[in-house]
Amino acid sequence: MVAFHHLGWRKPAIRILDRPSVFLAGAVSALLLLWGCFFFSTLDSIPFFSRSKSGLCNCNQPNPAFNLQFDPPVSTFYDDPSFGYTVDKRITNWDQKRRTWLGLHPSFEPRSHERVFIVTGSRSTPCKSPTGDHFLLRFYRNKVDYCRIHGYDIFYNNVLLDPKMPSCWAKIPAVRAAMLAHPEAEWIWWLDEDAAFTDMEYKLPLQRYKDYNFIVHGWPKEVYVKKSWLGLNAGSFLIRNCQWSLDLLDSWADMGPRSPNFDKWAGILMNEFKHESDDQTALAYLLLKEHQQWGTKRMHIETGYYLEGYWVLIVDTLKNITERYLEIETTTGMLRRRHAEKVSERYGVLREPSLKDAGNEFGSWRRPFVTHFAGCQPCNGKHNPLFTGKRCRDAMNIALNFADNQVLRNYGFVHRNLSDSSVVSPLPFDYPA
Amino acid sequence: MVAFHHLGWRKPAIRILDRPSVFLAGAVSALLLLWGCFFFSTLDSIPFFSRSKSGLCNCNQPNPAFNLQFDPPVSTFYDDPSFGYTVDKRITNWDQKRRTWLGLHPSFEPRSHERVFIVTGSRSTPCKSPTGDHFLLRFYRNKVDYCRIHGYDIFYNNVLLDPKMPSCWAKIPAVRAAMLAHPEAEWIWWLDEDAAFTDMEYKLPLQRYKDYNFIVHGWPKEVYVKKSWLGLNAGSFLIRNCQWSLDLLDSWADMGPRSPNFDKWAGILMNEFKHESDDQTALAYLLLKEHQQWGTKRMHIETGYYLEGYWVLIVDTLKNITERYLEIETTTGMLRRRHAEKVSERYGVLREPSLKDAGNEFGSWRRPFVTHFAGCQPCNGKHNPLFTGKRCRDAMNIALNFADNQVLRNYGFVHRNLSDSSVVSPLPFDYPA
Repeated sequence: MVAFHHLGWRKPAIRILDRPSVFLAGAVSALLLLWGCFFFSTLDSIPFFSRSKSGLCNCNQPNPAFNLQFDPPVSTFYDDPSFGYTVDKRITNWDQKRRTWLGLHPSFEPRSHERVFIVTGSRSTPCKSPTGDHFLLRFYRNKVDYCRIHGYDIFYNNVLLDPKMPSCWAKIPAVRAAMLAHPEAEWIWWLDEDAAFTDMEYKLPLQRYKDYNFIVHGWPKEVYVKKSWLGLNAGSFLIRNCQWSLDLLDSWADMGPRSPNFDKWAGILMNEFKHESDDQTALAYLLLKEHQQWGTKRMHIETGYYLEGYWVLIVDTLKNITERYLEIETTTGMLRRRHAEKVSERYGVLREPSLKDAGNEFGSWRRPFVTHFAGCQPCNGKHNPLFTGKRCRDAMNIALNFADNQVLRNYGFVHRNLSDSSVVSPLPFDYPA
Repeated sequence: MVAFHHLGWRKPAIRILDRPSVFLAGAVSALLLLWGCFFFSTLDSIPFFSRSKSGLCNCNQPNPAFNLQFDPPVSTFYDDPSFGYTVDKRITNWDQKRRTWLGLHPSFEPRSHERVFIVTGSRSTPCKSPTGDHFLLRFYRNKVDYCRIHGYDIFYNNVLLDPKMPSCWAKIPAVRAAMLAHPEAEWIWWLDEDAAFTDMEYKLPLQRYKDYNFIVHGWPKEVYVKKSWLGLNAGSFLIRNCQWSLDLLDSWADMGPRSPNFDKWAGILMNEFKHESDDQTALAYLLLKEHQQWGTKRMHIETGYYLEGYWVLIVDTLKNITERYLEIETTTGMLRRRHAEKVSERYGVLREPSLKDAGNEFGSWRRPFVTHFAGCQPCNGKHNPLFTGKRCRDAMNIALNFADNQVLRNYGFVHRNLSDSSVVSPLPFDYPA
């Protein structure tokens, strides 16, 4: 740039018109300089030059959220021959590997700390119970509805990824593979095939979990004091996509049938929990051991809301809950407002103040978040003899229709009778006023 | 700008250093002018000034894609008492209503012209065939997999929204309700319960459809000349979310069982197409009538790729297609590269040059886009007597596993045997080299 000191204050005002060519040269130079800065700053978007996050991005560019067509030819953990998806392939330094991947894929970085990926699944063969697959389809549809409303992704696994980890243990390899296939996800949420969302608006309180890596629903006293394998339920858990979690999954799998230590652990579990080895008892053991040790706790037993709710305590309350919610809506106009399904979260936020006295979980009149039909075994039909198959099927119908009503509302319809899955009625304007 | 003509060619080269202040003034003026242009163009991003698409946005803002919690208290069509979701509630001016909604929800505007929403569904009651629901679950899982890879949303409808439009007609009220519940979507894509994606990478060539509002797969000559109701297949169609389409759905529904004109139309369809009234024959009639009229055509019969492919022509080719693709991958390193599932589209783009001689549809070795098991009736089991139930089930297994392999690859596994749905093997590094 030209130095100014020689101009002094003694010169009269600049007379641009005396030298229009000089003026123009100045203008052009400035523009050239600016363009040069812009050009070099956009080199980041060219794969070979990409090393850091992009800052501003144009919303009118393809896919302002995720760039699904961008995978730079820069090595990541995927290119490491020693990396593998199976349980036997130990992984180290996963936190750094994920961070590097996110750094190379900047379109996935915004809000990545809240990103949830749901994994569910069932056997690969048809259910033995005649209505089994029908209910599995409805439970899956319910989960997909929840994901669509909240912008989550979901994967349904129906193959045995590790033949030595069948049955209840099969979720471990599935969750692990999902973590590795989805480095953009911060949380993996396992949900059993027979768990349904019964509050389509409720969201995981992730801000409460910043110090935890594993959350499961249960009763701490039952696990830590009474050592009951029923003190928690492994049908629904959140696991953070990090090295600590991969190590936990390794420890958990080590207690399972693929492990040479299976018999040893079976003995320990019988001793501590008076129960045979299964994924849930093993998990209870892992929780207990962490609880008993000094140091930071990364596993949390949630008691504040139905991350997993036992259907027997829930289903008979759904009719009353429906009426309470309708009552609220009768007096709160904004909650009756029709809207695009995509902005449903807004109405969840608007509804919260009306629910401040609702409580949560057993005894409350808040919609239960997740209702789990533990013991019903809709697929093989071998339900807990405490209840009949018909009781289970009727209850599943009620819960699934209760949930479906929250979805169908956005399409203009409702099941007037929670027990009738087939019949729906169109909703009048300003329902339920 | 200062005119140059007075400079002439007789002047010597510009001597900037003679007038540094003029040069600087030129530079500063250019920058001020540029900044001014930028400022006024970004006024769009300030709500009170927003009347058009937002330009730049910061990717690090909360939820750069969709703001799910924003629904301003400004009237839209949802707040109009005369607006309704049912087929009998005629809607007018839908294009303007959608545009207004998008304008009020700017986070949904970017790329809205490409946004696809898939609708599928089945009956509300369990299938009569013992394996029916099992296959429906797998077909649904397949569709959800495709959506997850491409960022589409999907809705599975399993209630009868209009009791007077049962069976094959039930898709019309479902598609219509989806259009109204999803003003953010430009295209609604109806897919039958027994249609599967068999090319997980292929994308709809939407750029070819800018002049069309309705696309279905078929053979123009069969429809327009031979007047065959089999000249198209209503099991897969794209319909643009616009007023023209709502009017088309009204015309289509008018030919159906809810309409007082049903008998009249049944007579006309029998006369023209020699076939009883159903949704497909009615659609063929609508295509024929548009074709015969003068003026702009908005309906298109796609012949270039399997928007819907008949399984009988496809299933026996899948083994060979698998081998051809593996051959290509053996010689093209980038296609063997493991990656996050979320960036799979990138590898679809990379694969295209290798497929330039593959052709498309019958006789090609390109993966078929959508394979439809028309005639198999997996739910009620009343298959076309041309083939056996076992032939259908075996074929569905092969196609679903063929598709599943493309998904499972991202989780590190493969079905080595396309006929075996249960067994998968871990993939070695650099497979299939």
